[in-house]
Amino acid sequence: MQSKNATRDKLIATGVKAMLTLGYDGSGIGPILQEAGVPKGSFYHHFASKDDYAAAVIESYAARYAAMRQRTFEDRARSPLARLSAHFEALAGEMADAFPHGGCLYGMLAQTVALRSPIVRDALLQAFQAWEAGVVRLLAEAQAEGEIAPGADLHDIAASVIDGYEGAIVRVKAEGDLAAFDRFITRLPRLTAMPI
Amino acid sequence: MQSKNATRDKLIATGVKAMLTLGYDGSGIGPILQEAGVPKGSFYHHFASKDDYAAAVIESYAARYAAMRQRTFEDRARSPLARLSAHFEALAGEMADAFPHGGCLYGMLAQTVALRSPIVRDALLQAFQAWEAGVVRLLAEAQAEGEIAPGADLHDIAASVIDGYEGAIVRVKAEGDLAAFDRFITRLPRLTAMPI
Repeated sequence: MQSKNATRDKLIATGVKAMLTLGYDGSGIGPILQEAGVPKGSFYHHFASKDDYAAAVIESYAARYAAMRQRTFEDRARSPLARLSAHFEALAGEMADAFPHGGCLYGMLAQTVALRSPIVRDALLQAFQAWEAGVVRLLAEAQAEGEIAPGADLHDIAASVIDGYEGAIVRVKAEGDLAAFDRFITRLPRLTAMPI
Repeated sequence: MQSKNATRDKLIATGVKAMLTLGYDGSGIGPILQEAGVPKGSFYHHFASKDDYAAAVIESYAARYAAMRQRTFEDRARSPLARLSAHFEALAGEMADAFPHGGCLYGMLAQTVALRSPIVRDALLQAFQAWEAGVVRLLAEAQAEGEIAPGADLHDIAASVIDGYEGAIVRVKAEGDLAAFDRFITRLPRLTAMPI
């Protein structure tokens, strides 16, 4: 999702940061323009509305994480389930570095604006679908290599893992420390070995 | 958490509704006062700040769900794990009734304001701790009755169930339908039977 337009890129980068800190409703266009040093007319040159902008912010964020995920998921030096753990450990590491800021933009925007805005919801839906499809492919490799039981429902395991991660972020924020992430990562092998 | 003050109760009820729809940052005190039909001076008579108000909103919401949970968890006509399923089915039913509004106030406020406000975070922390402690007690009953393996880590199962529920809400909102909840409830017996 790389744009050739530096102003648009700057607005999107500022939006990722603002929305991760203040959510959709707390991120006013005015402060974002000021932070990015961009005049108001320019915003509406690039985006039809705040929702259109939020969707572009999600797409940019999703593209970054898709690239990061791909590198980890294709690292054949490790077993598929070790790659799955490495993926979530990398996400936990980013959260730790940014703490107490950061988190998951998908979760923040899903919680607040998604059901009010079809364009935002569509961007989130696509981001989650791509993530889940990537996890399912990795789990299929794990199954082929005997790390997961033959009859296991890979789609449900993938959903349980992603839901568990999103829930762990909620708990990290409510608890004010990163223990919920540690619990989630420790639990991961048990989630992929759930009884059929 | 019943208050003897009708104005305070009205402000809190209005706040639950507003924050479930627009989150913390989208819920202005002005519109809340207008909706509740309460003059501005009265707000600061009852609450020291917006954060103090949000904490009271969380406490009221948590008290309602604690009472609902207690009724289900103490219904000895069903097995402990059947009570656990009934608890989440009741929450899913409420979400379905309110859809596309509603959700979980804890998740919404944790995602956005918790790490900026110690008073809000403390209210969320207490709400999650009470919920998790209740689930652990129910799981201990399940274990005593042979529904859960003797060596299972009940605290981790409780956390996995609550995190899974919070994550499912994120997915429901991102997907625009209730399928993620159905998946979560179908998965519940497998979460409580996770390998040790």
